[in-house]
Amino acid sequence: MTVRKFAIADAAFERSPGQTADVYAGNVVDQRDGAPVTIGYGRYGPDQSIDEHIVVDDVMIVLEGRISVASADGTVTAGSGEIIHMPKGSQVTIRSHEEGAVTAYVTYPHWQQPEG
Amino acid sequence: MTVRKFAIADAAFERSPGQTADVYAGNVVDQRDGAPVTIGYGRYGPDQSIDEHIVVDDVMIVLEGRISVASADGTVTAGSGEIIHMPKGSQVTIRSHEEGAVTAYVTYPHWQQPEG
Repeated sequence: MTVRKFAIADAAFERSPGQTADVYAGNVVDQRDGAPVTIGYGRYGPDQSIDEHIVVDDVMIVLEGRISVASADGTVTAGSGEIIHMPKGSQVTIRSHEEGAVTAYVTYPHWQQPEG
Repeated sequence: MTVRKFAIADAAFERSPGQTADVYAGNVVDQRDGAPVTIGYGRYGPDQSIDEHIVVDDVMIVLEGRISVASADGTVTAGSGEIIHMPKGSQVTIRSHEEGAVTAYVTYPHWQQPEG
């Protein structure tokens, strides 16, 4: 593997699996690259909401807009430059606000090929 | 572990280990939290440069300014919202530019307690 740089234009966005909301994820590094982590970008339309069972450790870095995550622990909201860590096993509702959102994410292990 | 949100104000910055440059790293999640990944923020003064042997997979998300990474693979430069992936085993020179830089990072495993 080599040192590589990615921009959002490198992400091939697909609708978040099992969802119908205007929420898209695009990996730039994943199991096909031989790295232990998946890296990608997320794109959320205005006022979208998805329910997810987090099967891997998932780190979201908010690049634009705001993201709220509701879980049994309460609700956290992050804006640009802020980070939300969703530990493996979390049951969450992820919500964007009126301005939509762009995120970067890093998961361990790969969310498309979870272990354990 | 719970879903948590972090801002740069949550990072306790320390000078990058073994370095004398104006480059600081502050973990917000690490081995003390029981997560498999370390999450943190990096802060670079203007025109700083550090040489590093990357002992873990290291993902840098540039939040402000620009970061260049030179390695045997050449040099990549990332600006705000762009991502640099430094695979484990890379020998790199990480450089900021005249405006300095702020990054978020995610490493697997923990860089302060590397495995293997």
